Amino acid sequence: MKDVTTFDGLEVGYDVPAVPGMDEADIQTPCLVLDLDALERNIKKMGDWAKEHGVRHRVHGKMHKSVDVAKLQEELGDAVGVCCQKVSEAEVFARGGIKDVLVSNQVRDPAKIDRLARMPKLGARTICCVDDIDNVADLSAAAQKHGTEIECLIEIDCGAGRCGVTTTEAVVEIAKAIDAAPGLKFSGLQAYQGAMQHLDLYEDRKAKIDIAVAMVRDAVEALKAEGLECDIVGGGGTGSYYFEGNSGVYNELQCGSYAFMDADYGRILDKDGNRIDQGEWENALFLLTSVMSHVKPDKAICDAGLKAQSVDSGLPVIYGRDDVEYVKCSDEHGVISDPEGNLEINEKLKLVPGHCDPTCNVHDWYVGVRNGKVEVVWPVSARGKAY
Amino acid sequence: MKDVTTFDGLEVGYDVPAVPGMDEADIQTPCLVLDLDALERNIKKMGDWAKEHGVRHRVHGKMHKSVDVAKLQEELGDAVGVCCQKVSEAEVFARGGIKDVLVSNQVRDPAKIDRLARMPKLGARTICCVDDIDNVADLSAAAQKHGTEIECLIEIDCGAGRCGVTTTEAVVEIAKAIDAAPGLKFSGLQAYQGAMQHLDLYEDRKAKIDIAVAMVRDAVEALKAEGLECDIVGGGGTGSYYFEGNSGVYNELQCGSYAFMDADYGRILDKDGNRIDQGEWENALFLLTSVMSHVKPDKAICDAGLKAQSVDSGLPVIYGRDDVEYVKCSDEHGVISDPEGNLEINEKLKLVPGHCDPTCNVHDWYVGVRNGKVEVVWPVSARGKAY
Repeated sequence: MKDVTTFDGLEVGYDVPAVPGMDEADIQTPCLVLDLDALERNIKKMGDWAKEHGVRHRVHGKMHKSVDVAKLQEELGDAVGVCCQKVSEAEVFARGGIKDVLVSNQVRDPAKIDRLARMPKLGARTICCVDDIDNVADLSAAAQKHGTEIECLIEIDCGAGRCGVTTTEAVVEIAKAIDAAPGLKFSGLQAYQGAMQHLDLYEDRKAKIDIAVAMVRDAVEALKAEGLECDIVGGGGTGSYYFEGNSGVYNELQCGSYAFMDADYGRILDKDGNRIDQGEWENALFLLTSVMSHVKPDKAICDAGLKAQSVDSGLPVIYGRDDVEYVKCSDEHGVISDPEGNLEINEKLKLVPGHCDPTCNVHDWYVGVRNGKVEVVWPVSARGKAY
Repeated sequence: MKDVTTFDGLEVGYDVPAVPGMDEADIQTPCLVLDLDALERNIKKMGDWAKEHGVRHRVHGKMHKSVDVAKLQEELGDAVGVCCQKVSEAEVFARGGIKDVLVSNQVRDPAKIDRLARMPKLGARTICCVDDIDNVADLSAAAQKHGTEIECLIEIDCGAGRCGVTTTEAVVEIAKAIDAAPGLKFSGLQAYQGAMQHLDLYEDRKAKIDIAVAMVRDAVEALKAEGLECDIVGGGGTGSYYFEGNSGVYNELQCGSYAFMDADYGRILDKDGNRIDQGEWENALFLLTSVMSHVKPDKAICDAGLKAQSVDSGLPVIYGRDDVEYVKCSDEHGVISDPEGNLEINEKLKLVPGHCDPTCNVHDWYVGVRNGKVEVVWPVSARGKAY
């Protein structure tokens, strides 16, 4: 029977799932566990790739929402900064000491624009995206009010079907407006093709990115003809970075999931037809869960359900086990098929989440482990920063 | 252009989405909004129903995870206490002043059992479920160690297919073991049929609950023959409470979603074939979102995606609008079909989430509104308490 253990005044099992120095076996479940060796290898590998291919890597902080992971990506992966999707999230990174932060998204609400315009005072280069000329005057007014500079990228919808302009004419028109607006600086293009990242086949992904690259190249050239240089041409994700990185047009990658991996991304295939979680990237993120009921001989119930993960991209996969399968997810329970009756009460299983981003977003902590011991407990610093 | 506004030292747009007294129009999105009038009516209506039918109502706190909402349910709905699914969640309610707390789930991990056994010291009657005779000695040892009493319900799997025993023999065997164990008290049965709550048709739901009631009645009678009385026979949800409440066997309802409603529950039909969100219950919970991009004339992008809601039970529905439809959800964006081009940038929409429980679980705050003004800002007190 364990006693309460505390960490910075927080109680294990109530506030935090673990404390540094604890055996991995004593971590309270359900919780997110990071294999620090695998994480560091993934980070270094992508950093090396970017360096070798002459592109910068602005890591996508919206995936992990962690200042600690972002700093590891700067240290081991030569990341030039982070991108993220919300102003409140960007503020977390800036307050945490990240010096170069891109909100790779539109910022339209007046209160959010005002916060964004104050962000340079936190010591961070502040960049956002624009897809509507009507946004320019508001951004400019806020930057002038606070005596700061907001850098702006024109967002191109190169296939994701969300925000972004779809013509070179619109890119040039908005870029010229930004260039002329006090307090703003035109800094380039944002062109992330999110919709193709999860296509299984390498050639299918390449075909989609070829279209994106053509759109971006056309925009870069048209801007050049107007005397507008792109400091940043950003995009690229875990399923496509080699295309953008080799395009000769993009100069900043924005990969996120490569660092942690997940079951949905893991299934996509590389050039040689191998799953990308079988060689290209390692599973570094796990949702640790415990068996809590096993009344039926062929079915175990675990303690990680919908409040410990997102199942939007499919159910989690049980790591390293082919005798058991996670088959159903309800609010607080997972149903595990255990046809041979192998699982014991309190046995711990490592789940590879279906989709890492929204799964990390429901947790407060990452428990970093190495050699069977808890080494670090990191807050999910920007969890809940959705504004 | 707004300035920073603070609330208890928290910054609006960073820490909190709103402050009391603010106009509803100024709430930062995405965030959860409660229509306080509708919430109070739902709470009172269910409380009145239980009272009229001679059953207690132990509200399901796992739905809202809010001490404030639970207290409103005690005050306006005569709730006798709460049930919830996790020990850490139960501790939040006990620390928050709820005096009667049932963990309607199995507790097996030694550290969790120890925490549970300490819970009575927080001033709360402490009840948990048991479905395995091997659990009894551990619970008893922990209660004796701390000099407390844990009340135990035998959990019957009456169709949900998760935890719980499936035979009356098993119920009686475990109940006798609990009755004989120092520090434990046998208090009755837990029999929640979760799997049928969302069946569309009233008659289909009734058929499933008839089976559950028969199992529970058999167990109650067999226990009585052994001299074991059930103080609590608990179960019943928003889609079934009238069956359990009229069964003559159940004496405690455990409804959760009725208070907030959601799109998935709202679709089920009452006895007369009407949707339950069209008369029986009101939508009191909304996910407020703003339009942030509208480059394509027939498609708007809003700021509430997978990190602001769970889509396990389907996409959200846009409240009060039949001209626009939420058609796609990615991490931070929602795609809204707007065939007539009616939506404006920064226009706010009220989404009815697909599934309230895991949606509330990703937010830190409820913003309670009445007559166009923010009246309260309540923490989602047990958010993240998954241990």
